[in-house]
Amino acid sequence: MFNARLNQLISAKNSLLCIGLDPDPAKLPECLRKESSPVLKFNREIIAATHREAAAFKLNIAFFEALGGEGWRILEKTLEFLPPDVIIIADAKRGDIGNSSRKYAQTFLQTYDFDAATVSPYMGSDSVAPFLENPAKGAFVLCLTSNAGSGDFQLLETEGEPLYCKVARAAARWNKGRGNCGLVVGATHPELIGRVRSLAPDLPLLIPGVGAQGGNLEAAVLAGTNNSGTGALINSSRGIIYAGNGPDFAEKALQSAQELRRKIGKVLSSRKNLGKR
Amino acid sequence: MFNARLNQLISAKNSLLCIGLDPDPAKLPECLRKESSPVLKFNREIIAATHREAAAFKLNIAFFEALGGEGWRILEKTLEFLPPDVIIIADAKRGDIGNSSRKYAQTFLQTYDFDAATVSPYMGSDSVAPFLENPAKGAFVLCLTSNAGSGDFQLLETEGEPLYCKVARAAARWNKGRGNCGLVVGATHPELIGRVRSLAPDLPLLIPGVGAQGGNLEAAVLAGTNNSGTGALINSSRGIIYAGNGPDFAEKALQSAQELRRKIGKVLSSRKNLGKR
Repeated sequence: MFNARLNQLISAKNSLLCIGLDPDPAKLPECLRKESSPVLKFNREIIAATHREAAAFKLNIAFFEALGGEGWRILEKTLEFLPPDVIIIADAKRGDIGNSSRKYAQTFLQTYDFDAATVSPYMGSDSVAPFLENPAKGAFVLCLTSNAGSGDFQLLETEGEPLYCKVARAAARWNKGRGNCGLVVGATHPELIGRVRSLAPDLPLLIPGVGAQGGNLEAAVLAGTNNSGTGALINSSRGIIYAGNGPDFAEKALQSAQELRRKIGKVLSSRKNLGKR
Repeated sequence: MFNARLNQLISAKNSLLCIGLDPDPAKLPECLRKESSPVLKFNREIIAATHREAAAFKLNIAFFEALGGEGWRILEKTLEFLPPDVIIIADAKRGDIGNSSRKYAQTFLQTYDFDAATVSPYMGSDSVAPFLENPAKGAFVLCLTSNAGSGDFQLLETEGEPLYCKVARAAARWNKGRGNCGLVVGATHPELIGRVRSLAPDLPLLIPGVGAQGGNLEAAVLAGTNNSGTGALINSSRGIIYAGNGPDFAEKALQSAQELRRKIGKVLSSRKNLGKR
């Protein structure tokens, strides 16, 4: 079951870190311009430098898709660079009527063989179901996102609680039996992560927003993890992959990944020490 | 402005019909199996046979994406087959944080030069905004979808009205100034289309669900159109493109498209006659 595998991997690597690959040609280091495929070379170097620090990599499909047909070849090659001891997430935010969602699930979880994908809940259960059919593969359902517009609908009061709580409850139901449903909860809502955790105690949380988006790391780790210190992935994309812009960009990315991992570890051990008192 | 252009085109062609291309290799007519690209040949024949009947074509990106890198080449070629007198919609249902949504908008509205795309509202205004920046291009925001799961969240009561009404109001605001925002409303909710129309009187409605999904055509046309008989696109995908499965599949698709267009025209003229009494 996907969630159990994710938690085992988090324990084994002693890391909650998820590194987000958002490869933007306009942001790549100058020194890669002469490469036949600068994006591919960038991904390869970043992965090689940082994969030991990370429990997961999240590939932002928007950035690959923006490169057209070539982007899908780069995606395919990038997947080959990723080692077997990381969870690989397609950050695709798809969701459609049943027969179309089935095609999206097939694309990401079968053709490209990602371990999991992010899914939008707006169209309801049959739009999410195809992503949950195989217990070995997971779906992270958008719950409370990290962006400014997240308040527009997700925080609306709906029959006694905000919409994002209804989504969290639904995901907890969808997780039953197969144990492969998770939730996306932004670190930019630190005070609400605990509420999601309590509504969906067994679901892993994918928590973006601690880097460029300025979310609260300590709150994210404390409220997001379960009592075993697993059950959460803390994602940083731009904060790690664009940490440097010179020929040492991969080394800078490694330093940034190590720094974030160290900070996460510090929060976790401070909690452990508190618990021992 | 996109909405004005859409309405002019609907008037000029005297058609509300939108034909949905969901090319599924498993469903293609036997006679195409020997082609070098059966999907491409299928799209070409369907478009050539039916384009005079339609105001718009909606390409379901799930089905192209499922074909991998090859799918994007087929998408590109398919776009070349479409004549200039139809609106071309990328049915992509994307939506992400601002900088990622910008990439998706760039992919569909610039790189592939679609006239419009469908967008999921769950992540709020900044996830939709990049699709609305260029007034010549449009976004159809998911409001009340045609699938079974649409009730899970879209029909939840939120501060005095269901969530889909809040989305309709938001889209009406997003439409201000540029006149390029529309809504997706399924024909499977015939009694609610009028409510969306009254909350967003100037927005075009993209109405799927009248074919394979069994929605109510008469209600969709009556409640969905404005007083000029424009402002709505009635979509059928599988009902048209898979109307036949033999060597005459394109002819059968044409007949199905003509039949649906005729039915739509009948509803519109019955209303006109009623109005004249």
